[in-house]
Amino acid sequence: MAQDYDQRALEAHAEWHGKVDYQAKSIVTNHDELSVVYTPGVAAPCLEIEKHPEKARLLTGIGNLVAVITDGSAVLGLGDIGPQAALPVMEGKCVLFKSFAGVDAIPIALDVHTVDEIVATVKAIAPSLGGINLEDIKAPICFEVEKQLHDALDIPIMHDDQHGTAVVALAGLINALKVTGRTAKDTRTVMLGAGASSIAVAKLFRLYGVEEIAMLDSKGLLCDDRDDLNPYKQEVASWSAFKKHPDGSIPQISEVIKGADLFIGLSGPGLVTQEDIASMNKDSMVFPMANPMPEVMPDLAKAAGAAIIATGRSDFPNQINNALGFPGIFRGLLDGRIEKVEDNHKLAAAAAIAGFVKNPTADEIVPSIFAPGLADAVAEAVKSA
Amino acid sequence: MAQDYDQRALEAHAEWHGKVDYQAKSIVTNHDELSVVYTPGVAAPCLEIEKHPEKARLLTGIGNLVAVITDGSAVLGLGDIGPQAALPVMEGKCVLFKSFAGVDAIPIALDVHTVDEIVATVKAIAPSLGGINLEDIKAPICFEVEKQLHDALDIPIMHDDQHGTAVVALAGLINALKVTGRTAKDTRTVMLGAGASSIAVAKLFRLYGVEEIAMLDSKGLLCDDRDDLNPYKQEVASWSAFKKHPDGSIPQISEVIKGADLFIGLSGPGLVTQEDIASMNKDSMVFPMANPMPEVMPDLAKAAGAAIIATGRSDFPNQINNALGFPGIFRGLLDGRIEKVEDNHKLAAAAAIAGFVKNPTADEIVPSIFAPGLADAVAEAVKSA
Repeated sequence: MAQDYDQRALEAHAEWHGKVDYQAKSIVTNHDELSVVYTPGVAAPCLEIEKHPEKARLLTGIGNLVAVITDGSAVLGLGDIGPQAALPVMEGKCVLFKSFAGVDAIPIALDVHTVDEIVATVKAIAPSLGGINLEDIKAPICFEVEKQLHDALDIPIMHDDQHGTAVVALAGLINALKVTGRTAKDTRTVMLGAGASSIAVAKLFRLYGVEEIAMLDSKGLLCDDRDDLNPYKQEVASWSAFKKHPDGSIPQISEVIKGADLFIGLSGPGLVTQEDIASMNKDSMVFPMANPMPEVMPDLAKAAGAAIIATGRSDFPNQINNALGFPGIFRGLLDGRIEKVEDNHKLAAAAAIAGFVKNPTADEIVPSIFAPGLADAVAEAVKSA
Repeated sequence: MAQDYDQRALEAHAEWHGKVDYQAKSIVTNHDELSVVYTPGVAAPCLEIEKHPEKARLLTGIGNLVAVITDGSAVLGLGDIGPQAALPVMEGKCVLFKSFAGVDAIPIALDVHTVDEIVATVKAIAPSLGGINLEDIKAPICFEVEKQLHDALDIPIMHDDQHGTAVVALAGLINALKVTGRTAKDTRTVMLGAGASSIAVAKLFRLYGVEEIAMLDSKGLLCDDRDDLNPYKQEVASWSAFKKHPDGSIPQISEVIKGADLFIGLSGPGLVTQEDIASMNKDSMVFPMANPMPEVMPDLAKAAGAAIIATGRSDFPNQINNALGFPGIFRGLLDGRIEKVEDNHKLAAAAAIAGFVKNPTADEIVPSIFAPGLADAVAEAVKSA
C-alpha cells in the first residue's frame, strides 16, 4: 500500500511540478489595469502603509500568508535529506493549509543549519509574512530557533512537529480520559521516544495536569541520575519518580510501562511488545504514534487489554494527525492578529478538537481531519483563548 | 489622472488583500488524496530528489518560481519607505510575471539592509527558488548584492531596476538608430542621472558599441578629474572626453548636451529645457525616462527638433517599460535552466524586443507590452543566447 502510494505520488508530483499554485488575483491585460496593479497607482497603497504600518494587512497579502519553513534536517522519518529534498513535504503542508483552513502558504527551504543562521534568515524575511510554521528542523536546534523567533518577532511562530503533535495528542487524551473515566492527575504516563515532538507532548500534558511522566530515549529512561541528558531531556526527567537501578543500569520500557495508564510512542516500529501492553493498568490508553509502522500494532494492543488505541495511521480508528490542528490554529492566529503563540492557545486548540467529538467512544476520541467545520472551531477557540 | 489611479488603487488593494493568489494544485478532500499529496506518498519524491538533485525541478515548483526581493530602500520614486510598504510594488511585479510570461512569483520583503545581510538571507532561501529578481534596492548596495549573489548561486539573479531598464532602453536605441540612420559607434550620448539604472544602461550601451557617453549626476558631469566619485561612477567617467573647466567648475547639462545625438534621462522632472534639446545634433534621439514626469515633455522636445522621443509613460508613443523585458527574460532563464545572467542574455533580449517591431518608425521603436508573443520571443532569444 505504501509502495502503491510511492508510485502514485511520484507520478502525480511529476505532473504537478509543484503543488502550490501561484496565480494573480488580477491578470493585467491593458494599460488601465496595469496602472492600478502597478505604477503609477501602486504608489498610493505603498505610501498608505508607510504612514500606517497596520494597513499592510489590509493592502497586501501578509494577513493570510504563512511560510512553511524547514532546513531539511529532520524530514518525516527520513532524517537529514537537505532543504530541496524536503520541498515536497513543505509544499504538501501548504496544500493542507489551503485545503483545511483557506490559509495561503508558501514553502521555504533553507540552506543554513545553525540556530543563528536560521533565526537571522527567518527574521529577515518576516515582513513578507503573517505567520511562520517551522517544520522538520532537528532537535535540539528547533527549540532554540523557535524560542528566539518567538521572542524577536510580532507574528506567530509555531514548530508544528512539536506543538501540532502535542495539541492533537492532548485532544486525544482529553477524550480518552472521558471514555475511561480517569483524571489527568492520576494518569501515570510512559512515553517512548525523546525527540522534539515527544518533549512537546510531555510539556503540554503537564500543563493539562498530568503529573507522572516517564520518558525513555534510545538508552532507556530519562532520569535525574543520568549525566548524558541535554537540558530539555533533564527537565522531562524530573517528572518521573523512576531512578537508575542500584547497579547503575537504566530502566527500560518493559519495566517502566508496568502498571502505567497511558503509553505514548513517538519512536520507531515494533519497539513495544504485546506483553508490555498487557502489563499496563486496566483499561489502558495506548497511543503508538510512530509512522508509518507504530510501536505496537493496534490489534495486538487490543488483545493485550488496551481500552483505547490511537495511532498516526488513517487506516485505524483514532488517527492522531497534525492536520487536525495546525490549519485551524493558524486560521485563528491570523484572524485574531495574535502576535505570539502561547500555552493557552495550544490548550484551547486541544480542547476544541476534543470537543468537536460530541460523544467520544473508544473508537472515536478525535474527529476526522475532514470533519466539516473543524478548522473553524479550532480557529475560534484560538482567537478567544 | 495619477490621483484618479491613487484612489482606484487604494480601493482595489483593500479589496484584494494582496495581489498574489496562492492556491493548491490539488485540494485534499479525502485520505486517499492526502496520502499522495502528503504522507506517506510524499516520501517518495523527497527521496528521489535526495538521490537525484536535478529532479527538484520536476517534482517541486522551483522550476517556475521567481522571488521578487526588496529591502524597500529605493521604492519607485518614493525612496526608502521600508520593506512592508514596498510589498504592493513587489506583489504588482509578481502579477506582471504571471500576466506576461506565466512565471510564478512570490514577493519577499527583507528587514535587513547591509550587503552582507541581504546576501546571506537570499542565499539561505535560494533552495526554494528557480530565480531571483532583485527590486528597488538602493545604490551602491545593489551592485555588490547582485555581484555576490551572481557569483555564489547557480540560479539566475537579476536586479531589474538596472538590467531590465538597460535591456529595454537598448531595444529602443537599436530601432532609433535604424530610423535615424545612425550607428552605435557614432552616437554621442548624454545621460542625466547616475543611479543604478543609469549606470546599467551606460554599460549595456557600451557593450552594444556606443563609445562616447557623458553622464551627469546632481553635481554635473562625471569626469576623470572629479575626486568625489564612487568606483561605479568612476568607470562611467572614463567613457567621456569632457573634463572639468580650467577654473575647476564642472560642466553642466546645457553645455554637455550641445551637439549630442542621444539623450537618456533617468533623473527627475523638467531638468532639461527645450533649448537643451534644440542644441543637440540634427534628428536627435531623446529618451527622457523620469517617471511619472519626464525630464522634458515630448511635445517640447519634438518642437525643438527631436526625431525620436521615448519616455516611461504609457500615454505617449515609445514607452520604455521594464515589463517589455523581465517577464520574457526570466521565462527564458527558467526554461533554459540558465544558471547565471550574463551580458549576452541582456543583449539578446534587447535585440529580440527591438526585432519584435517589424517596421520601426519614429513613433514605434519598441513594441507594446501587450503585444502577443513578445515574452515568448524574448524568452527564446535568452535561451539561445
